[in-house]
Amino acid sequence: MPQTKFLLDESEIPKHWYNVVADMPNPPTPPLGPDGQPIGPEALTPIFPMALIEQEVSAERWIPIPEPVREAMRLYRPSPLMRAHRLEAMLGTPAKIYYKYEGVSPAGSHKVNTAIPQAYYNQQAGIKRLSTETGAGQWGSAISFAGNMFGLEVRVFMVRVSYDQKPFRRSMMQTWGGKVFASPSMETQTGRDVLAKDPNNPGSLGMAISEAVEEAASREDTNYALGSVLNHVLLHQTIIGLEAKKQFEKAGDYPDMVFAPCGGGSNFGGVAFPFFADKAAGKNVRLVAVEPASCPTLTKGTYAYDFGDTAGLTPMMKMYTLGSNFMPPSIHAGGLRYHGDSPLVSQLYHEGLIEAVSVHQLATFEAGVTFARAEGIIPAPESNHAIRACMDEALRCKQTGEKKTLFFNLSGHGHFDMASYDKYFAGQLDDHSYPEELLQASLANLPKVD
Amino acid sequence: MPQTKFLLDESEIPKHWYNVVADMPNPPTPPLGPDGQPIGPEALTPIFPMALIEQEVSAERWIPIPEPVREAMRLYRPSPLMRAHRLEAMLGTPAKIYYKYEGVSPAGSHKVNTAIPQAYYNQQAGIKRLSTETGAGQWGSAISFAGNMFGLEVRVFMVRVSYDQKPFRRSMMQTWGGKVFASPSMETQTGRDVLAKDPNNPGSLGMAISEAVEEAASREDTNYALGSVLNHVLLHQTIIGLEAKKQFEKAGDYPDMVFAPCGGGSNFGGVAFPFFADKAAGKNVRLVAVEPASCPTLTKGTYAYDFGDTAGLTPMMKMYTLGSNFMPPSIHAGGLRYHGDSPLVSQLYHEGLIEAVSVHQLATFEAGVTFARAEGIIPAPESNHAIRACMDEALRCKQTGEKKTLFFNLSGHGHFDMASYDKYFAGQLDDHSYPEELLQASLANLPKVD
Repeated sequence: MPQTKFLLDESEIPKHWYNVVADMPNPPTPPLGPDGQPIGPEALTPIFPMALIEQEVSAERWIPIPEPVREAMRLYRPSPLMRAHRLEAMLGTPAKIYYKYEGVSPAGSHKVNTAIPQAYYNQQAGIKRLSTETGAGQWGSAISFAGNMFGLEVRVFMVRVSYDQKPFRRSMMQTWGGKVFASPSMETQTGRDVLAKDPNNPGSLGMAISEAVEEAASREDTNYALGSVLNHVLLHQTIIGLEAKKQFEKAGDYPDMVFAPCGGGSNFGGVAFPFFADKAAGKNVRLVAVEPASCPTLTKGTYAYDFGDTAGLTPMMKMYTLGSNFMPPSIHAGGLRYHGDSPLVSQLYHEGLIEAVSVHQLATFEAGVTFARAEGIIPAPESNHAIRACMDEALRCKQTGEKKTLFFNLSGHGHFDMASYDKYFAGQLDDHSYPEELLQASLANLPKVD
Repeated sequence: MPQTKFLLDESEIPKHWYNVVADMPNPPTPPLGPDGQPIGPEALTPIFPMALIEQEVSAERWIPIPEPVREAMRLYRPSPLMRAHRLEAMLGTPAKIYYKYEGVSPAGSHKVNTAIPQAYYNQQAGIKRLSTETGAGQWGSAISFAGNMFGLEVRVFMVRVSYDQKPFRRSMMQTWGGKVFASPSMETQTGRDVLAKDPNNPGSLGMAISEAVEEAASREDTNYALGSVLNHVLLHQTIIGLEAKKQFEKAGDYPDMVFAPCGGGSNFGGVAFPFFADKAAGKNVRLVAVEPASCPTLTKGTYAYDFGDTAGLTPMMKMYTLGSNFMPPSIHAGGLRYHGDSPLVSQLYHEGLIEAVSVHQLATFEAGVTFARAEGIIPAPESNHAIRACMDEALRCKQTGEKKTLFFNLSGHGHFDMASYDKYFAGQLDDHSYPEELLQASLANLPKVD
């Protein structure tokens, strides 16, 4: 009977990250300051260590992974590449379906892959504390886990409404020693100002970012950590695709199409960029970013300079955006509710080198439940987006008889998202379409920089 | 740097289960019927398929694992054997610590190892439905997952208070197609009778067992499935210890001591029995069952014939027992709250061939948090018992300088037990000692059969 799992030994954890910048036909667009002029690396030193800033602007193809980072990753990496025999049979497709399972990390998602090097480089730079924000809690969990490994105090500003509604993500962070504050909090001036006016303010991701950045910028011993969007974050995630390529070699196969969820872009970039290297060298492989129909940044947004946060405190980045004031509907794939996208992913999409599709919420949960019944693992709602798009292609193959090799990133498990599955089973999930008028209004407010 | 993970290829999933009966110095004691006379296999045919009944009474050393069972297990087996380098360093012990991680199964615990063969043999026997009970939900999850793999309808009677308090375990079962009923339910005469008198009855495990057995006994198409205690369940779990022995060979090591949580006995039997085979052949290895101080069946119970359930409907089995009416305090390791113990484990303990210790609840959570901070994985409360006992031994080695090799079964993750960790962090967990008067009262009521 054909093989199910393609495993690597821990000695096969990659020794370098892959930097897609080296293979892009054009150099990346620079971030701009408030004056509309490109900013240099030094603008980032108050909140990031120099090692990460260097990675942010590097054009080197291969960047070495420090040995202590590889060592820390051995707790859960290499992650398995799985052949979904049972899903193929259930769908009756001639396509072959593979998935990389990143839910094996202690925090349960791929976010740990960048949390570990971020914690390491900050510790090396003498930093004692990391501050960050979290919404659904996946990133907060990952950085709490990683900070603990390198002896850093981790301070997580968790949107109050999530803090109250998701107590188990909070306890997970606390188990690893993370300090979790409901945001707005009394820890920062931003938080105190908000609470003075409105003691019951439910918080927002934008507000939590402001608290975390305020703390990092105002204290020498504290830096800020971000879980997606930036170049160095996508760089760290390429470990997923690099491992997958070795595993496909062992399987004697190679994907025709690669699918990954796409919110801020680190999930997609992590799995797809190493395959882009092959594509740049002439190989025929299609790379598909899958986003929610309710927050369709690539498929319906504009390619323009915009802020990364709602308050306009970050540098402006050229990216696909729905406008920094765009408020996506409250879908359950919290990790994909971002108005913008990674500048690297955006540029590749703009140049027609990668593809994007959007899928509706109900269809993603239907795909997730089908997958769970076939393969056992209950996926995170974000991962269900990739599963949906991959299953749709497998069903097309069933029509055409094509024996394509399909591959998706199963970026995390859904053990902390069962309330969403509950609502799905109870018929209480909205199937948000995209609110066109709101988009137009939001896009009309993009900053003018050209 | 020394190796962390010892992996097996899926072709190395064992082809036989190990039956400890073949190496026991005395034959197992028979179960007794209501008349105090030994019952034969035929008494079990209304609720179990013949293949499982044959395993229940077999004395063969090796029992073949059917190929479809091995194939189904390839979704998550072989499970990894891990060397806990970071925990060793944190404790400062010269001991080497290894653990087998069973939380990789889709349902998150070792329970799946018996759920799959039970579902398979029932399907082979033409059974269409399985009924079972669940308290905390681990067994209900495992059998829902396994039943789905073999096309069986799974009906889980979940104690109402758990049904209401643990909605996420319930949604997990539903994701795999399990039908979950709050017990007492309107599905059975037992349930209807209770509800007629008391519509708000919170239910109990004993009541849920009665509902599940009633359904199995009264319908030709339905059998009952049990998650621990019985010989065939322990047999199926030996796959854990058998894999571990292969992995220790690859590690070039062998345990001096093996630790596992012990409630009904399948966790302990699963990991320890294959090492008992070596012990029976003269090897020096200590096998330690770890139980809660609040439900200390082996360490404080009596070795006698007793019923398996509170209502006295099951055959009587000779085992260590606290009395079938003993009500253990409501600790968070729900899987270890059982008044009796596997007859096989009990007999080996009675003959001095294995050891047992009891540990207190707070100390188990302290151990679990220490483990999570060292090794990443957040353990199930049941698993924390083994971790505690293993850590205590590692700390003794620190005093004596002994370089023992210690091994424990990390039987599951704690992703659905974060409410318990929450209470631990909030200082709200009781540290139950054992209520001696209640035990004496309970033991005074053991059935008289000799």
